[in-house]
Amino acid sequence: MSHQKLFNVAVVGATGAVGEQILNLLESRNFPIGQLKLLSSARSAGTKVSFKGQEYTVEEATPDSFKGIDIALFSAGGDVSKALAPHAVEHGAVCIDNTNAYRMDPQTPLVVPEVNIEEVGGHNGIIANPNCSTIQMVAALKPLYDRYGISKIIVSTYQAVSGAGSRAIDEMLRQTRAVLDGAEVNPDILPVGSLPVKHPIAFNAIPQIDKFQDNGYTLEEMKMVRETKKIMKDDSIDVTATCVRIPVVYGHSESVYVELKNDYELEDVKRLLSEAPGIVVVDNNSEQQYPLATDAAGKPDVLVGRIRRDLGNKRGLNLWIVSDNLLKGAAWNAVQIAEHIAAGE
Amino acid sequence: MSHQKLFNVAVVGATGAVGEQILNLLESRNFPIGQLKLLSSARSAGTKVSFKGQEYTVEEATPDSFKGIDIALFSAGGDVSKALAPHAVEHGAVCIDNTNAYRMDPQTPLVVPEVNIEEVGGHNGIIANPNCSTIQMVAALKPLYDRYGISKIIVSTYQAVSGAGSRAIDEMLRQTRAVLDGAEVNPDILPVGSLPVKHPIAFNAIPQIDKFQDNGYTLEEMKMVRETKKIMKDDSIDVTATCVRIPVVYGHSESVYVELKNDYELEDVKRLLSEAPGIVVVDNNSEQQYPLATDAAGKPDVLVGRIRRDLGNKRGLNLWIVSDNLLKGAAWNAVQIAEHIAAGE
Repeated sequence: MSHQKLFNVAVVGATGAVGEQILNLLESRNFPIGQLKLLSSARSAGTKVSFKGQEYTVEEATPDSFKGIDIALFSAGGDVSKALAPHAVEHGAVCIDNTNAYRMDPQTPLVVPEVNIEEVGGHNGIIANPNCSTIQMVAALKPLYDRYGISKIIVSTYQAVSGAGSRAIDEMLRQTRAVLDGAEVNPDILPVGSLPVKHPIAFNAIPQIDKFQDNGYTLEEMKMVRETKKIMKDDSIDVTATCVRIPVVYGHSESVYVELKNDYELEDVKRLLSEAPGIVVVDNNSEQQYPLATDAAGKPDVLVGRIRRDLGNKRGLNLWIVSDNLLKGAAWNAVQIAEHIAAGE
Repeated sequence: MSHQKLFNVAVVGATGAVGEQILNLLESRNFPIGQLKLLSSARSAGTKVSFKGQEYTVEEATPDSFKGIDIALFSAGGDVSKALAPHAVEHGAVCIDNTNAYRMDPQTPLVVPEVNIEEVGGHNGIIANPNCSTIQMVAALKPLYDRYGISKIIVSTYQAVSGAGSRAIDEMLRQTRAVLDGAEVNPDILPVGSLPVKHPIAFNAIPQIDKFQDNGYTLEEMKMVRETKKIMKDDSIDVTATCVRIPVVYGHSESVYVELKNDYELEDVKRLLSEAPGIVVVDNNSEQQYPLATDAAGKPDVLVGRIRRDLGNKRGLNLWIVSDNLLKGAAWNAVQIAEHIAAGE
């Protein structure tokens, strides 16, 4: 009987929406944990969290928190990752970062395990988890890229409010009840907590996620553009995105138009997708079966459906891609990377 | 002083969501009505409706209902239009039909006044109002088509539940309250009332509007494809659509990618749109101003924003187009046509 190696794990942002899902997954996946350290901002420090029947007290994350830590999972915002991940690395930890802080850093691998797990080996202490909306799209497109090549991607997203955090969910539910009761709606958080103008999300669609850039795109849209090219290792893919927040709690949906570099047969595309890891094809029009956010919620899979030819361009293809933004879009992707490291692969 | 000519007007489907808006507009626009006849199915006959302070009793629509009628506005479903519009024409009425019954009939003009009002002159008794999702898109694209030409349109819609009728709105509000209260959601109408499988619309996004066609597209998607080509009088435009129902009451939003035939300057596009009839440009990123369904609701305008270049294709352009699906998307477009006829233009 072999003795399994155990890892000292720190979860930074343990009380947040993603941190909570990371802990659920570490528990349900029976991750080989030696010591577990739950970290957060000063504001949430002191919170009690239960893990495998044991109670843990969340501590304030400081540079010294990472002594003896082997794997640190960060999801407490980009500023926290920027400030603390280098200290964790100094102490010998491998950091898996869920924020935008290191994604486009050339030294940092940007990893979706189904797409480019081999990149993990080249890390310098930090491995970045891509943006939620990017992860599910590249997971679905990778098998098509490998088989046909991709020249262009045009994506419009239908993103869940949980992507903006627990407080945004509370705001949406509060606003929704106000509308149903004929009361006043006073937007307070969305679209972007740190910006002055607020818009109602209840019974609405807001075409702004994150701040506007000088080129007229939002940061969320530019994340999809840049991260897709980096993960696919192909700057020649022409990506354009429109990112929209809609009144959904969990599960991002995406309408993706892709132009392949070579001719394809629709049945081959469906077969490639159905054989791809992490992908579940839900595509049966006569039974009215297609991916739905409410079905994707709580599942690790990326659901793909509405697979159909562009009627005008024989290399054009439409897809509807849905996944739980807190799971494959964040926590599950990070834990997959952690499992890969733990397995010493 | 001239005596204004008066018209005997019939509104078929007077108790429906669109019929109600038609009556509001005929009243607020002070349409030159002689006799007003409110018609409906047998089920709704007998309903009392107030118009300009006078009470009208809705009558069951029959072939003889149209004697003496000059203008008949139909919005009671395609079957009713197919059965009764020919009788109205026989009686000498001009029919403005809000349903899908005659849109693709080569003898029937398909009219968006801002785009092709001149087509009205060629009618044989019936003028078709396009589908709501098509109207707002072509109204916004026409000025760009005229100036640059259009080779390709890729549209993803975010459509309001009111497009599926008043009962669908009730269903969404009921489901939403059930979710908030932790009660069970029992979908009964959406996505398509006449089909067996139902999906929840509360906090969800359903990528099916109307029935699936053999080519894998829904009828709603194919309406956008075919009607756009017919209205623009250009079969060479390559259109592909993904139509999605989201939890919004009034106002369809559309993420539209358009490839122009010629190079463009972004400022020229913005100027052309801001000068176009029926279009209001809402596009100020630094002030976080862009079209929102909640702002479009109740207004006749088509709002256009998020106007930005495709970063990869210099002839590619992204737009976010929003309008009230019951107004410009249905009732207002029909009343505009009626006003054109009444003016004898």
